Amino acid sequence: MRTLAGVGSTPLTGIGTARWYDSAEDLSLPDEPDPEAVDPAAERERFADARTTAREAIRLARDRAADRVGEEEATVFDAHEAFLDDPGLIDDIEAAIDEGTPAERAVDDRFGDAIVQFEGMEGRMAERADDLRDVRDRLLRVLLDVDTVDLSTLPPGTVLLAERLTPSDTASLDPDAVAGIATATGGRTSHAAIIARSLSIPAVVGVGDALRAVSDGETVLVDGEAGELVVDPDETRRAAIDDEETEVVRDRVTTADGRAVEVAANVGSEPELAPASDRGADGIGLFRTEFLFLDRESQPDEDEQYEAVTAALERFPDDRVVVRTLDVGGDKDVPYLDLPTETNPFLGRRGIRLSLGEHADLFETQLRALLRAAASDVGGDLAVMFPMVTRIKEVTDAVATVESVATDLEAEGVDHAIPELGAMIETPAAASMADALGDRLDFLSIGTNDLTQYVMAVDRENDALSEYHDPLHPAVLRTIHRTTTAAADADAWVGMCGEMAGDPALTELLVGLGLDELSMSAVTVPAVKKRVREVDVNEARELADAALACETRAEVRELLEE
Amino acid sequence: MRTLAGVGSTPLTGIGTARWYDSAEDLSLPDEPDPEAVDPAAERERFADARTTAREAIRLARDRAADRVGEEEATVFDAHEAFLDDPGLIDDIEAAIDEGTPAERAVDDRFGDAIVQFEGMEGRMAERADDLRDVRDRLLRVLLDVDTVDLSTLPPGTVLLAERLTPSDTASLDPDAVAGIATATGGRTSHAAIIARSLSIPAVVGVGDALRAVSDGETVLVDGEAGELVVDPDETRRAAIDDEETEVVRDRVTTADGRAVEVAANVGSEPELAPASDRGADGIGLFRTEFLFLDRESQPDEDEQYEAVTAALERFPDDRVVVRTLDVGGDKDVPYLDLPTETNPFLGRRGIRLSLGEHADLFETQLRALLRAAASDVGGDLAVMFPMVTRIKEVTDAVATVESVATDLEAEGVDHAIPELGAMIETPAAASMADALGDRLDFLSIGTNDLTQYVMAVDRENDALSEYHDPLHPAVLRTIHRTTTAAADADAWVGMCGEMAGDPALTELLVGLGLDELSMSAVTVPAVKKRVREVDVNEARELADAALACETRAEVRELLEE
Repeated sequence: MRTLAGVGSTPLTGIGTARWYDSAEDLSLPDEPDPEAVDPAAERERFADARTTAREAIRLARDRAADRVGEEEATVFDAHEAFLDDPGLIDDIEAAIDEGTPAERAVDDRFGDAIVQFEGMEGRMAERADDLRDVRDRLLRVLLDVDTVDLSTLPPGTVLLAERLTPSDTASLDPDAVAGIATATGGRTSHAAIIARSLSIPAVVGVGDALRAVSDGETVLVDGEAGELVVDPDETRRAAIDDEETEVVRDRVTTADGRAVEVAANVGSEPELAPASDRGADGIGLFRTEFLFLDRESQPDEDEQYEAVTAALERFPDDRVVVRTLDVGGDKDVPYLDLPTETNPFLGRRGIRLSLGEHADLFETQLRALLRAAASDVGGDLAVMFPMVTRIKEVTDAVATVESVATDLEAEGVDHAIPELGAMIETPAAASMADALGDRLDFLSIGTNDLTQYVMAVDRENDALSEYHDPLHPAVLRTIHRTTTAAADADAWVGMCGEMAGDPALTELLVGLGLDELSMSAVTVPAVKKRVREVDVNEARELADAALACETRAEVRELLEE
Repeated sequence: MRTLAGVGSTPLTGIGTARWYDSAEDLSLPDEPDPEAVDPAAERERFADARTTAREAIRLARDRAADRVGEEEATVFDAHEAFLDDPGLIDDIEAAIDEGTPAERAVDDRFGDAIVQFEGMEGRMAERADDLRDVRDRLLRVLLDVDTVDLSTLPPGTVLLAERLTPSDTASLDPDAVAGIATATGGRTSHAAIIARSLSIPAVVGVGDALRAVSDGETVLVDGEAGELVVDPDETRRAAIDDEETEVVRDRVTTADGRAVEVAANVGSEPELAPASDRGADGIGLFRTEFLFLDRESQPDEDEQYEAVTAALERFPDDRVVVRTLDVGGDKDVPYLDLPTETNPFLGRRGIRLSLGEHADLFETQLRALLRAAASDVGGDLAVMFPMVTRIKEVTDAVATVESVATDLEAEGVDHAIPELGAMIETPAAASMADALGDRLDFLSIGTNDLTQYVMAVDRENDALSEYHDPLHPAVLRTIHRTTTAAADADAWVGMCGEMAGDPALTELLVGLGLDELSMSAVTVPAVKKRVREVDVNEARELADAALACETRAEVRELLEE
């Protein structure tokens, strides 16, 4: 038995057979033949066939990802299909074939050029090089008839090992087949890690180079709670798995000394509603509405939005559903909305900034759907929150829009109600102004992923700075505490819907910091509910005070381990 | 007399004759001739001549900018010259000429294609489209023999009006000829505005579309203090100019009730040292060291850095010179350092992150030079500060490096001393940890430009969000106050070196917030010193308390106007 340390990403444990997944970077091409010996017509046909096969595979992966993960993550495959039809690429490849180059070499050369070109660019353009690689690899595998790991059809009981997984890779996985994931790089808030969590696949990330020492076929145990990869686990370790599955608690929970803490789920698409309810979530603390806008040619109309929100309310008849208004921009693009290209998209036009600016129409339509849903009698209580708030003026403007929409609906004789209103606390400005926000709103919800990003001035997708992106830095904890204190003074309830909320190892600290609600991936709901019941509020407060007095993340981690 | 409101950028007043500056976007090309009628050899020669003329003009502009503004801003012209020699562009243009296209049309077409291509890219690449436009316009002006405004040779008494100015435009200006600048767009922390300030050119930015109503030849007064552009000013308004020039105060100043406030200068190149001293600065509050690293093939050696720092100490024999260690990354690139390309550079590897990471060697060399300079007896006292601090660990690591460098110098028998050490407070994390930073360091210096950017989660170069980038947002003021309070408790002095520090309209507020030192563009030193002398500390504190209780920027502005 050997144990490799990493970062627990999905806090579940799985065991299975190791299987390495590498990109097709080093597929070897046959030697270049004499151009005279090449039959261009035959090569063009091979190329056309390969495109057809690749297209089918891409569409299959797309549909599978849409079902399993949601429309948002599935859109990456549309980009892949677009590259299959890129006229510049296709023309170049066909021209090379006509000059006597075999199809596989023409594909490798022309895609290679395009990849180098994209890699030389900045930011998101550079990321498209990865998409091109995916497509090139698919074509080459078909043309060379090479059998490589197809992520969507892995045999049951596979533990997938990789240097890194793209969100697209992860979205292709079949959660019933994959017993676990371990990657050498990456952090727990990367998109790939978040997808793995939403698929309930046990995952450990950031294992480092040590991962290379694990070979295909070895039996490995992925412990996403301890953040460990155990190679050739002993009986004790194996036996522990069965004991681990936490029982689902259907009732609301309180701490050992009786303080109520809501444990809700984050939901990013309709298929995630049922699992959230099955795992005993006390409602939805973050209902992302982006999925309604993705993978389509134009924005959804009011009725479609109304249906989606009432579906969520129906699923949670006795609970609250907190809907976040459209939060695009930053790293989330929606082609038909013509979002701006910016040098620092995370410091650009995002969330409420767009809703009060160029997308005011869209905001109004969404609010109409929400105010109608608030009046429906299908079930749960609706609450609505605004993302990326930095200024009080934004909130007064947003509330004024809500009121004007209500006036319009009233005039039209349409049933409506004004839901509970809140703001995401995900910028340092919002945390500093939490007193004024709490005065004007019913609740605040702390988004720790972005909050950490801005407090620490670090792009959370930048792997080179992953140790900066940790909500356990005392600066982040102090910012959270500033928010909960101000919210309590203003009689607003305060929740948390960042990844941090779903880590049972942090539940006591978060209760001590004063959170009234924790919202997370459904998979972690049972473990967090269990943990809440064990917490003593006074001890939790002492722990929080000690953490707030720490000066480094290391001190906080040490404190939590004690 | 008509008065147009804008944002005061350089707080000086100037009067002169309006002159519009537009890019050559709509130069009209002659009709396309019959290709047979074109003499390719003659057109190639015209193109070659135009390149030679453009190259001379670019080099002249480069040298002038280097003298007047500093090497950092002059490098943009190197990029321009590189486009003149871009083999792809040149080959394409010459090929078009050989096919019978006249030179100007070939230039216009090929540059046009390249501009469209760059515009389609992300971030900084897109900005290169502006550079291409500059070069195309230069070439077309020569080829078409069109007389347009040459920014570097404007007649004395010109007030330049423009939709917007690029940093490159601004750096070309002759401060002796240009009586003022007014632009329709832009904010006071844009690079162009900062350059205008460092050139002491009166400037008002953000006047809006109303600026278009001003015609060439009208007499206009630019009041950079009031933020007004006065067309056809009356006698009273003209007469006021002469009274305005604030007297230079050589001594250190105190508030009316005796509290000392240091008024220092920000310096970004050696030529700026003399003007800073001439305007009565109490030393240098921010000595940027980037200029030593720019426009060269490799990093400066230890001796060169030693010389630059001792030159600054000599110029201020009785004062303190605060040197900031190398602060590259973000929007500041140094080609030979191979800085990473990042999706969100302002949230990436910058400042101390690089100095403790991939550029540790360079950091050590710089510290050797600084510790030697600290022991020199040429004059002023050296202080050293670290940029972009977010974590206490960075400071302990940096201080450990200082100590290890001292040990090395000791072992080598080289004279050295450990200077005062401090940290820039420019991230929300640093402000939250100001207590722990103050415990470990002698001083803190608040960089409000970046601090505002991170508190408000807004890219300060993103014009679409300029109203978010204002340090008068209560969230920023509260973050500043958190810093000054913690610094006072920790017995560390605290300064401010962002643009905010140089605005005399904010001096009382800043004294009230507890700043011990204000550091700014030299041009504003006399006005701020004058203002400090008028401040009563108790009243200032009341003003600060009232500002901290405000909820919106509008309330703060109203308060300051009262």
